[in-house]
Amino acid sequence: MREVAIIGIGDTRFGELWEHSLRDIGMQAGLNAVSDAGIAGEQIEALYIGNMAAGSLIDQEHLGALVSDYSGLSQLHIPAVRIEAAGASGGMALREGYLAVASGLHDVVMVAGAEKMTDVTDEEIPMVQMAGGDQQWEGIAGATMPSLFAMMARRHMHEYGTTREQLASVPVKNHKNGALNKQAQYQRAITMETVLKSPVVADPLGVFDCAPVSDGAAALILAPADAAGKYAQEAIRIAASAAATDTLALQHRESLTRMDSVKVASTKAYRTAGVNPKDIDVAEIHDSYSIAEIMSIEDLGFFEKGRGGPATLEGMTEINGVVSVNTSGGLKARGDPMGATGVAQAVEIARQLRGKADKRQVTDAEVGLSLNVGGTGGTSVVHIFRRA
Amino acid sequence: MREVAIIGIGDTRFGELWEHSLRDIGMQAGLNAVSDAGIAGEQIEALYIGNMAAGSLIDQEHLGALVSDYSGLSQLHIPAVRIEAAGASGGMALREGYLAVASGLHDVVMVAGAEKMTDVTDEEIPMVQMAGGDQQWEGIAGATMPSLFAMMARRHMHEYGTTREQLASVPVKNHKNGALNKQAQYQRAITMETVLKSPVVADPLGVFDCAPVSDGAAALILAPADAAGKYAQEAIRIAASAAATDTLALQHRESLTRMDSVKVASTKAYRTAGVNPKDIDVAEIHDSYSIAEIMSIEDLGFFEKGRGGPATLEGMTEINGVVSVNTSGGLKARGDPMGATGVAQAVEIARQLRGKADKRQVTDAEVGLSLNVGGTGGTSVVHIFRRA
Repeated sequence: MREVAIIGIGDTRFGELWEHSLRDIGMQAGLNAVSDAGIAGEQIEALYIGNMAAGSLIDQEHLGALVSDYSGLSQLHIPAVRIEAAGASGGMALREGYLAVASGLHDVVMVAGAEKMTDVTDEEIPMVQMAGGDQQWEGIAGATMPSLFAMMARRHMHEYGTTREQLASVPVKNHKNGALNKQAQYQRAITMETVLKSPVVADPLGVFDCAPVSDGAAALILAPADAAGKYAQEAIRIAASAAATDTLALQHRESLTRMDSVKVASTKAYRTAGVNPKDIDVAEIHDSYSIAEIMSIEDLGFFEKGRGGPATLEGMTEINGVVSVNTSGGLKARGDPMGATGVAQAVEIARQLRGKADKRQVTDAEVGLSLNVGGTGGTSVVHIFRRA
Repeated sequence: MREVAIIGIGDTRFGELWEHSLRDIGMQAGLNAVSDAGIAGEQIEALYIGNMAAGSLIDQEHLGALVSDYSGLSQLHIPAVRIEAAGASGGMALREGYLAVASGLHDVVMVAGAEKMTDVTDEEIPMVQMAGGDQQWEGIAGATMPSLFAMMARRHMHEYGTTREQLASVPVKNHKNGALNKQAQYQRAITMETVLKSPVVADPLGVFDCAPVSDGAAALILAPADAAGKYAQEAIRIAASAAATDTLALQHRESLTRMDSVKVASTKAYRTAGVNPKDIDVAEIHDSYSIAEIMSIEDLGFFEKGRGGPATLEGMTEINGVVSVNTSGGLKARGDPMGATGVAQAVEIARQLRGKADKRQVTDAEVGLSLNVGGTGGTSVVHIFRRA
């Protein structure tokens, strides 16, 4: 298979976008990516759309054809398809788009992720989120996503002595980063005290330990790495694309304090890219809940098991720390429009590796990683990126 | 890219499977395919799951991880993903699975399609079906899928003189074929009179012009063609895989009487496979509505535009006619569990090309085609198959 590069990136601001529909924001992110790449829309040969739940949220499936249509490409009749893997839909869409170029089937492919979550009532959101867990074993018993992650957090505290303050240091850091990102849903810093005093969602997790409900879209243009020189922007090489699954239900796993799909996918990705965890300069991690970031930076091999909490509290994952984690603000502060998240992670890494991340720029960032997770780790997708 | 073959097939009976959940039937079809291929489940390297609307129908997304888990593969942590393109989800899943093998990324891949439609009330089904159309331009105005196809039928009658009897000859033929298929939802022949006297759904289409609401699953095992000899069954080569899109809304198209996505996808597929329409011995066509089969056999080039109706009434698409169309019974009689349909089409073609289609066997079938359509033609996926 041939090497693949990102030649264009685009996104919308994430947030409660009351005046924009799913098709508006999908189209806007796509147009931004086309413009960034300096190509004509007609050069796009195929579309891969990451989306988790538009059927439930806005009664609309068939988003491949929809995005092609509303991007003005319907006369070209290009192949377009929606990819779904719960919260990892965007990362999986990138993986399928990557494969379409790596295989030689297509030369220029657009990968987009989009989700419109605010068109339903707040009461409907927990059921939509639980569609990424196991409804027959978990949802039916009343479990919600925050309650499942709360169990993981409580067990992590029991086994490794992780503290409430260590958990809280994740959203504090991510809001600090989000304050530097004009596309983030929340662009303000918060204090440790704010997190600790926030209303409890599922003990020990409070409101500020949980990513918000968001609308948003992001898009990438991919091309063969050996042709990347002819496009407008510095190309970012996709050095590895790996995915792994686990049991859908948390209760069927050996341990509550690790996500094996993260370990398997990242181990594969490191091998393919020929790097190891300490080579990663900047990483976008799936902090759907504060405990998820702590477990992930352990399972990715950035820190030893049990050291994720202390490392975060000590500032090792801040910008220009040991590894710069969630410079975008992460799911917590940038926002988490589910199917868009995995694509937005790649957009942020590309910005960092281009050296165009403004005030949140990581110094001399050469190697980046994204981790996109579905449910409680039923699916994980890891990509590794390099300056070409 | 390397050549790909089908080395195993499996399905469940289609119908109202009250006693089985989505995970039951997905697993059963998968196990049947594994058994047919004579492989161990552990040899499967990746899963591609075609499903249209489990989020809306059973509040469950994340079907890649779910099927991997309930097939007993969770300990292998293999990549698994759901593919969605409305009614063409199964065909698109086959296309992505094909690409995973053709590219060299994987050697043995399972493609499965599954849908469980009978867990919701009859009142909810039209909205779920319309999620494959354009909700913002069509659904919001009260359009349903049958009403859109009825408009296509009425215009086809106006432009080409297609008659009510010609439309009715589609379900008459397909029920005749379904009566020979033990996996079909409806295994009984019907008369022309039954179709003509059936209650009107959307004039000119009656109940018998519309595919039913179904539960069901189907699965395929794919492997590189050059390794196919080491498996249990006669391998069936995938000679072409092509997909195309069109506007999501019918009203934005130039013509109501053709589906351009069918023309574009099939033209590409014929070129790739090095065949032309008259080389096709057996075809599974997306007869979601009787008019859809008539338009499709024209747009596929089997008959001139406007000749689809007379050709069907004259028996040219019966088993061992000019081209044998929907020998399985098609969507009308075999059933249409949306995401399963495209995979079930490939299962039927493989049975025919293996010479194992029992009483509905097409004599000396060498080249087969499947056409899987999403919505009113927003997506079309065409595969061409050959005896290896």
